[in-house]
Amino acid sequence: MRFVTDDFLLTTQTARRLYHQCASQLPIIDYHCHISARDIAQNVSFDNLTHIWLSDDHYKWTAMRWCGVDERLITGDASDEEKLTAYAACMEDLVGNPLLHWSHLELKMYFGFDGVLSAKTAHEVYEMANARLATLRARDFMRMAHVRLICTTDDPADDLIWHEALEKEGFEIRVLPAFRPDKALAVASDEYADYLARLSQAAGVPVEDLPSLCEALRRRLCVFAQHGCVLSDHGLTHVSFLPCDGAQADAILKKRLSGGRVTKQEAAMFQSHMLVWLGREYARRNWAMQLHFGVLRDVNPTLMRTLGVDAGGDCIGSASDIEGLTLLMRTLEEEGSLPRMILYSINPADNAALSVLAGCFQSGEARGKIQHGSAWWFNDTKLGMENHLRTLASVGALGNFVGMLTDSRSFLSYARHDYFRRILCSYLGEEAESGAYPQDEEMLMRLVRKICYQNTADYFGFQLGGE
Amino acid sequence: MRFVTDDFLLTTQTARRLYHQCASQLPIIDYHCHISARDIAQNVSFDNLTHIWLSDDHYKWTAMRWCGVDERLITGDASDEEKLTAYAACMEDLVGNPLLHWSHLELKMYFGFDGVLSAKTAHEVYEMANARLATLRARDFMRMAHVRLICTTDDPADDLIWHEALEKEGFEIRVLPAFRPDKALAVASDEYADYLARLSQAAGVPVEDLPSLCEALRRRLCVFAQHGCVLSDHGLTHVSFLPCDGAQADAILKKRLSGGRVTKQEAAMFQSHMLVWLGREYARRNWAMQLHFGVLRDVNPTLMRTLGVDAGGDCIGSASDIEGLTLLMRTLEEEGSLPRMILYSINPADNAALSVLAGCFQSGEARGKIQHGSAWWFNDTKLGMENHLRTLASVGALGNFVGMLTDSRSFLSYARHDYFRRILCSYLGEEAESGAYPQDEEMLMRLVRKICYQNTADYFGFQLGGE
Amino acid sequence: MRFVTDDFLLTTQTARRLYHQCASQLPIIDYHCHISARDIAQNVSFDNLTHIWLSDDHYKWTAMRWCGVDERLITGDASDEEKLTAYAACMEDLVGNPLLHWSHLELKMYFGFDGVLSAKTAHEVYEMANARLATLRARDFMRMAHVRLICTTDDPADDLIWHEALEKEGFEIRVLPAFRPDKALAVASDEYADYLARLSQAAGVPVEDLPSLCEALRRRLCVFAQHGCVLSDHGLTHVSFLPCDGAQADAILKKRLSGGRVTKQEAAMFQSHMLVWLGREYARRNWAMQLHFGVLRDVNPTLMRTLGVDAGGDCIGSASDIEGLTLLMRTLEEEGSLPRMILYSINPADNAALSVLAGCFQSGEARGKIQHGSAWWFNDTKLGMENHLRTLASVGALGNFVGMLTDSRSFLSYARHDYFRRILCSYLGEEAESGAYPQDEEMLMRLVRKICYQNTADYFGFQLGGE
Repeated sequence: MRFVTDDFLLTTQTARRLYHQCASQLPIIDYHCHISARDIAQNVSFDNLTHIWLSDDHYKWTAMRWCGVDERLITGDASDEEKLTAYAACMEDLVGNPLLHWSHLELKMYFGFDGVLSAKTAHEVYEMANARLATLRARDFMRMAHVRLICTTDDPADDLIWHEALEKEGFEIRVLPAFRPDKALAVASDEYADYLARLSQAAGVPVEDLPSLCEALRRRLCVFAQHGCVLSDHGLTHVSFLPCDGAQADAILKKRLSGGRVTKQEAAMFQSHMLVWLGREYARRNWAMQLHFGVLRDVNPTLMRTLGVDAGGDCIGSASDIEGLTLLMRTLEEEGSLPRMILYSINPADNAALSVLAGCFQSGEARGKIQHGSAWWFNDTKLGMENHLRTLASVGALGNFVGMLTDSRSFLSYARHDYFRRILCSYLGEEAESGAYPQDEEMLMRLVRKICYQNTADYFGFQLGGE
Repeated sequence: MRFVTDDFLLTTQTARRLYHQCASQLPIIDYHCHISARDIAQNVSFDNLTHIWLSDDHYKWTAMRWCGVDERLITGDASDEEKLTAYAACMEDLVGNPLLHWSHLELKMYFGFDGVLSAKTAHEVYEMANARLATLRARDFMRMAHVRLICTTDDPADDLIWHEALEKEGFEIRVLPAFRPDKALAVASDEYADYLARLSQAAGVPVEDLPSLCEALRRRLCVFAQHGCVLSDHGLTHVSFLPCDGAQADAILKKRLSGGRVTKQEAAMFQSHMLVWLGREYARRNWAMQLHFGVLRDVNPTLMRTLGVDAGGDCIGSASDIEGLTLLMRTLEEEGSLPRMILYSINPADNAALSVLAGCFQSGEARGKIQHGSAWWFNDTKLGMENHLRTLASVGALGNFVGMLTDSRSFLSYARHDYFRRILCSYLGEEAESGAYPQDEEMLMRLVRKICYQNTADYFGFQLGGE
Repeated sequence: MRFVTDDFLLTTQTARRLYHQCASQLPIIDYHCHISARDIAQNVSFDNLTHIWLSDDHYKWTAMRWCGVDERLITGDASDEEKLTAYAACMEDLVGNPLLHWSHLELKMYFGFDGVLSAKTAHEVYEMANARLATLRARDFMRMAHVRLICTTDDPADDLIWHEALEKEGFEIRVLPAFRPDKALAVASDEYADYLARLSQAAGVPVEDLPSLCEALRRRLCVFAQHGCVLSDHGLTHVSFLPCDGAQADAILKKRLSGGRVTKQEAAMFQSHMLVWLGREYARRNWAMQLHFGVLRDVNPTLMRTLGVDAGGDCIGSASDIEGLTLLMRTLEEEGSLPRMILYSINPADNAALSVLAGCFQSGEARGKIQHGSAWWFNDTKLGMENHLRTLASVGALGNFVGMLTDSRSFLSYARHDYFRRILCSYLGEEAESGAYPQDEEMLMRLVRKICYQNTADYFGFQLGGE
C-alpha cells in the first residue's frame, strides 16, 4: 500500500498546480533551527535510521510514551532496530499527528520509500534506509532538500568557530548564526554566575555590572554580525513587561552577583530592561527580533532527572499577557527603536491576538515589519498550520508572511517545509476554487513564491542569487 | 476576469436558494454603526473613491502598512489616485482578508464592477467609480442597500440635532441614536472633568457628585428615548466587577472632582457601580445593553501621536474575565433588573464562554434575551463569522440570533450585511446538505429571515411595516 | 420528511463502512455518568416522554429559555404534553445544537421515529413514544443501547446500597460506583461541618482533624474498591496549586471546625494538599483520577433560588491555570505517585494545552496514562467533539484515547455514544479519503474499535468477556 504520493495532502487541482509548478521547485531558507554547525562542518554521517530519527527527537519519544512503549525502547538500552520497530508500531495510533506525515515524507524524500511504516514493514524500512545512510552525510540531506541558507541558534558566549570554518571553506549552503541571549537575561537562574563567567570570557570583558554586561553583549553582537547574523531569538516564559531603568537593572544584577536572591518581580524587571536594550541594538543593526512564549519548561521531574532538558517535558502555558507584550513594543516604538519582530506564541489561543497585534505596529519601513510567526513546535501540525494561516490571512496580510521554519535539530526535518508548502497550496487552492480569491493563476503563483521563499529572503536581506 | 459573481461564497445549491430567494431580498437593520447623522441630514457626497474608501478607514490603513506601503500613500499627502492605486496593489496579498471581499462586494453593489481590483485595474476602477460618485449621495447608498433603519453611536452629551432634523424631515430610513456613556464612566481619564462640564451643559444639571451625575444621565436617557433610542453600548477595557455602593462611588467621584488621583481599583469600582445603575435604567426603559470588551486601545504611540485614535493602533486583548462579567449580570438579576444584553468579546478565544453564558441568563421575557453578539471588528471576517455562528449554534440557539451589524463609519459598509448573509446561507446549506439539519426548505427560509431581519426587528421592538 | 437515517452524519464511504461494520456493533462502557443506581435497581419506568426528557434536563431547559419559552412550560405547572410541544417547537431554532441531534437520535433508537420533531409532529411523537414507554423500563434502555458497564458518580459518604443490590442480584450490566469527594475538599463551604458529620457516620470515624479525615476517606476508598470502583472524579473551580503540608492542612481544617473563617488562599491550599493525598491513594489502588475544571457554577441567582443547582445556571469559566495543574502533577510525579489521570477543561480554549500536557506525563506504565478527556458538557457538540478529536490527534496519539462518556442522568443518553461514534468515523474517513492517513481498512477498523471500546476496557482494567 502506498501512502505518500506526489499529490499528498493537495486537496484541489489548483493546489496541485501551485505545488508542482511552483512550491516544490523553490529552495529552502530555514531561518530558525537547532542544527549543529559542527555537524555540518564535519559532515557527519549516521549509523542507521534509529540514530538519525530517534537519538535526539523528543517529539517521537513523547508519541511512543503515549502509546505505552517502555522507556527502554525509547531512550534506554534496547537495540537500535528494536527501537525503530517500536516507533514503527506507533504509526497506526498517530492519525492526524505530524509525526505520521513527517516520518513518511522523510522516508519518501530521502530514502524513496512510499509505503506505510508499521511493525510489519519496520525491518524492511530499517534495512533499506540504513543502506542509503551508508552513502549519505549531513550535507547531502541539505542538498537533497534544496536548502539555500540556514540560521542556527547560538548563545552569545558561543565561539562560532564552526560557522567560521564553513565560511572559510566556502560551503555553498550558507550557515549563519542567530543570537539567543536567554541565559544572559535569566538573572534569577542558579547558573547565572557561571554563565556570566563564560560570557565574560567569550567577550573579553569581565561582567560585573550592567554597563559591562551590555558591553559584553555588544561585542558579541558585533562578532555575530561579522558572521552574517541578522536575527535574534528570545524564549520567554512570561511576556509581562515591568518598566525598569538602568539604575534599577544595575542594582538587581549587582544584588545577584553579590549572592543575593532575586525576586520574581525583579527578574521580570531585569528581563524587561534587557529586552528594551537589546531591541534597540537589533534595530540599530537592522536585525529581526524573534520572541516566543506560551511554554512551560520541564514540567515532568522524572524526565528532567533522567534525560535532562528537551526530552518531552515541555508543554503549552496559559494564554499570554498581550498587554505586557504591547508595553514592550510601545516602549521601543516610542523611542523610534522598534526592530522588525517575529512574534510566536506556543498557545494557539493567542493566534488572533498576535495577528492583530502585528498589524498595529506595521509601517512603511518593511513589508510585514512585524510578523505573526509560523506555527511551530506543538503547532507544527496540519491543524496548527491551517489555523495559523487562516487567522493571519483573516486579520493580517498573508502575502507578506515570511513563512516556515523547522526549529529542528535533524537533517531530515526539511520535510517540514514540504509539509507546510502542501498545506499552504491547499489553502490557497481552496480559496480560489471556492471563489473566495480570484482564480488567477499568476496571482496565486506569486503568493506561493513569496510565502515559501521570496519574503524570507527579502525580510532578512539575504542576497542569494538566482534560483 | 470576474471575481464577485451572484453566487459569491455560496457553497451549496441550498445556500444559493436561501440567499437568492430570501436573504438577498431582506431589508437591512444596522443597529450598531458609527455613521454620522449629520452626513445623512446633509446628504453628503464624495469627491472620489479614495475619499469614501480611504480617508477614514483604519482597516484599509493597517492592511496597507502590512504591505509595506509608505504612510504618505496611506494618510499622507499623496494624490487621491496614488492612494487608491497603492491600496489596489495590496489586494493580491489579502487572500482570506475581508477587505478583499468587502472592497469587491462594494465595487459590485454600488459601482457595477465585478473584475479584480489591482494595480493594473486601479485607474479604470477609479475613473468608473468617480463617475458614479458624481451622481450619488449618502442617502443613495443607504437606499441601494435596502436599509430600513440604523442606530448611530452617540455620547450622552451629544445634542442629537441631526437625528431631530431627520425625524422632522421625515427621511424614510429611520436614524436612531444609541447611548454610549463610556466617557461618563471613565473616572480616571485625564479629560474627565472637561467631559462632565459638557455633560452638565447638555443635561442642564451641574454634575458635582454621584446623585447629580445620575440625574444628568437620567435626563439624557429621556432625551435619547424621545428620539427613539432603544439600546446602549459600553466599550470596556476590563470586565472585572468590583462591588461598590453609592457612598463609595460618590466618594471616588468627589475625590476625582477635587483633583485627587483615582486608583485603578477605584476606577473599576466606579465603573461597576455605574454599570449596575445604568443596567437598571435600561431594564426600566426596556432598552438593550451592549457590552463589548477584549480590546487594547491605542497601543502604537506613533499612530496615536500622528493620527490620533481609531487609526489602526487597537488590538485584541487577552481573554476576558468571565467571572467578572457573571458578577455584573448576577447583581442585576438579583434585583430583577437585568436588561436585555448583547455581549461581544473582540477576543475569539472567549466565544464558547460567551455563548454559554448567554444561555445562563435567558428567560421567557424575550427570545434570546441575552445575545452573544455578532463577530465584528477584528472578527468581522469569514473565519470569524463562521466560528461565531458555529459556536453560538452549538451551545446556544442560533434561530434567535439578532444578526449582523456593521460598526462602520462608511456608507458603503452595508456590503458587510451581504457578506454575513452569504456566510450564514452557506453555513445553513452545509448543515442541511450534510444531513445535520432537516432538508426542509421552509424551516431553512424561516431561519434565514429571522437571523437576517426579523429577530432584529422583534428584539428592539422596531415597527417597520411590511417588507 | 426523514431526518435521522442510518448514515446520519457519516460524511464519506469510509466513514459509513467504519460505522456500520465496526462502531455501531460495539458495546458501550459509560465510565462517567450520573445515572441513579437506585433507578436501575428498582428498574423504574417513565410516565411519558416529558417525564424522561424534560423533568431533569438542564440542557433542554436552557434551549427552551433561549427560544423565549415561558418557564411555566419548562419547569412550571403546564401539562406534560404542553411542555413536550413547547420543546418540539424549539427544534427548528437549534440548528447545529446537539439537542437537535440527540433528541432525534433518541427518538430513532428507542422509539423508531425518524421524522422531524416540531410543533406539528409533537402530538404524534408524544403518543407514539408514550405507547412504547408503557412497555419499557430503565434496564430496557440500557440493553437496547448495548451497554456493558457504567460508572455512576458517588460521594464518599454515600452508602452504595443500590450498587450492592445490583451486584447481589447479578444484573448483567455492571454498575460500578465512582468516587467523587468534592464536598470533602470544600473546606470553605457553608455546609462543610454537616458534610463531615455525614462522612463520619458513613466511615465510622469521627472526623475532627486531618488524620481522621484521611482515615475516613481511606475507609470509604476501601468500600468503594470492594464494589469495583476504579476511578475518581474531581470538579475543581480553580486548578491553582498552592503547596501545603500536613500541618498546614490540619490547621486549616481545625480552624474551620472550630467555627473560624477560611480564606480563599487557605481553601486552595487545603484543596491542593488533599488532591496530592488522594492522588497518592488512587495511584496505590491503580485507580484513575478524573479532574475537570473551567466551569463557573450557579451564576444565575434566579435559577438557583427557584430550581437549585443543575438547572442551567452553570457556564464556562476563563481559560485554566495550566501552570497550577502542572504543579499538582509534578508534585505527585516527584514522589512516584502520579496516578492515571483524565483531564477535562470545560473551556475549549484549553484544548491544545491539555493535549500537550498529557503528553508530558506519559510513561510506559500504561497506554495513554494521562488522557485529555472527551468533549463533554458544553463541549458535547459536533463542533466540540471535532475540535477535541483534531487537537488530541494533532499533538497526542488518538489511537490511545479512552473515548466517550455521557455525563448524563438520563437512560436515553446512550445516544451520545452513537453521536460520538458517527463523528469519530467521519473524522477518520476524511483523514483516510483525503490521503492524510493510509487507506487501510484494517488499521482504521482497529482505531475505531480501540477508541470506542477496547481502550476504555483496557484503561480501567474491566474484564468484560467476549463481545
